[in-house]
Amino acid sequence: MRICRFSAENKIFLGVIEEEAVYGVEEKFPQPPGDADEIRKLTKGASSRKLSSVGLLSPARPTKIVAIGLNYKAHAAEFNKPLPEEPMIFLKPSTAVIGPGDSIIYPSHMSRRVDYEGELALVIGRKAKDVPVERARDYILGYACFNDVTARDLQGKDIQYTRAKGFDTFACVGPWIETGLDPLNARIETYLNREKRQDTSTSDMIFNVYELLSFVSYVMTLLPGDIITTGTPSGVGKMKPGDTVEVRIDGIGSLINTVAARA
Amino acid sequence: MRICRFSAENKIFLGVIEEEAVYGVEEKFPQPPGDADEIRKLTKGASSRKLSSVGLLSPARPTKIVAIGLNYKAHAAEFNKPLPEEPMIFLKPSTAVIGPGDSIIYPSHMSRRVDYEGELALVIGRKAKDVPVERARDYILGYACFNDVTARDLQGKDIQYTRAKGFDTFACVGPWIETGLDPLNARIETYLNREKRQDTSTSDMIFNVYELLSFVSYVMTLLPGDIITTGTPSGVGKMKPGDTVEVRIDGIGSLINTVAARA
Repeated sequence: MRICRFSAENKIFLGVIEEEAVYGVEEKFPQPPGDADEIRKLTKGASSRKLSSVGLLSPARPTKIVAIGLNYKAHAAEFNKPLPEEPMIFLKPSTAVIGPGDSIIYPSHMSRRVDYEGELALVIGRKAKDVPVERARDYILGYACFNDVTARDLQGKDIQYTRAKGFDTFACVGPWIETGLDPLNARIETYLNREKRQDTSTSDMIFNVYELLSFVSYVMTLLPGDIITTGTPSGVGKMKPGDTVEVRIDGIGSLINTVAARA
Repeated sequence: MRICRFSAENKIFLGVIEEEAVYGVEEKFPQPPGDADEIRKLTKGASSRKLSSVGLLSPARPTKIVAIGLNYKAHAAEFNKPLPEEPMIFLKPSTAVIGPGDSIIYPSHMSRRVDYEGELALVIGRKAKDVPVERARDYILGYACFNDVTARDLQGKDIQYTRAKGFDTFACVGPWIETGLDPLNARIETYLNREKRQDTSTSDMIFNVYELLSFVSYVMTLLPGDIITTGTPSGVGKMKPGDTVEVRIDGIGSLINTVAARA
């Protein structure tokens, strides 16, 4: 099942996609529904729109984004880092979130080197605290493509990743949440201006999605809509204004964003 | 003016404190009022309760907490660190927030060394993006005491501060928001079991509150209720279950929390 958020008639809707149609109900605040069945029920009987006629938004409204550093063996090698013994976590602020088609704003006032990082993200379905690995699956609503945009020069300079990865527009999420994905063996590719730059299976992760959710839940409570993004494979590289970047995951779809100069 | 949040009759209220009385209206979600005048208007005509009869909560509901590393000269010296040329920022998740009187839960499953860090926090009043230093003041609702609780052993081990500073209950905020404080020259003290451990003036900050707000706003948009906590002075030290820690700021008041063992 594909869950999305979209705008139409100046309102924001929560929707379910079926082929080229989307069934949506107006979104309620503050807490998003965390369960696929609940969302299915909500949208049952909703009027249908053509998917191509609506503006897709970030499919999740996270209160926080927990990101993972160095979670693919080949990416660790790329940066000459030893393999971590535990997941290395950091946060991206919710104000960084953009959706499919939105522009990544290049922070030229502070950085000269901005990279894409294609990733598989999981979206939390229900409140998760102290969750053992074997129960982690029950807390996941579904999966989306994620671009963990990173000002590489600031990452090295600051040591803490917060500024490098925290600029507005630096967390691209979409195009929707797929509830049926097998997260342990999905092909993930990133294209820069249609040229392939990353191509790996999620089976190469050091810590899989269930281990990551469990680990994070023993540190901080995860809330419905929160995102854990699971680290990037090898092949990261820089972008410049005018570039188009696509994160494609088999079984989900393509998240496409362009890079724009700061006004 | 002192702005608080409190619980009474199983509801949550936004309140204004006048001497020993509190005037409150039921809190509305999702967006908190960002302006002292607006809050004053809201609570005008509200019924009064005795301050001692209500349960104070964290006075802010931040979407994010931006914290500052090494912002007092003496604290930098304590850790043998050179003075930073720019503010060093990191994030604490909103799930870490607790209010006055709440317990800090010692994460003994992961850490053996948990420290207090008494700090002055500012609470954002209105949406702030790309704010010059000289206009920063207009975006601040007021000030509160903050304890940036830190698992010191994990801070060194992980390099990224997220886990060390991100556990549930590791962001103590309160007891209320004082709108009238002079943040450039306020005495800040921390007491562990009534013994003084930190005692400094905010005039010893490397970057003052206005410079910090401006810097952060050029990275990420700040929203009403968001918190910037401005770094801790020298004198940090460890706590253990059963300890009581008090952050006291002249012109605000005292934020008191106890440390409890993990269940």
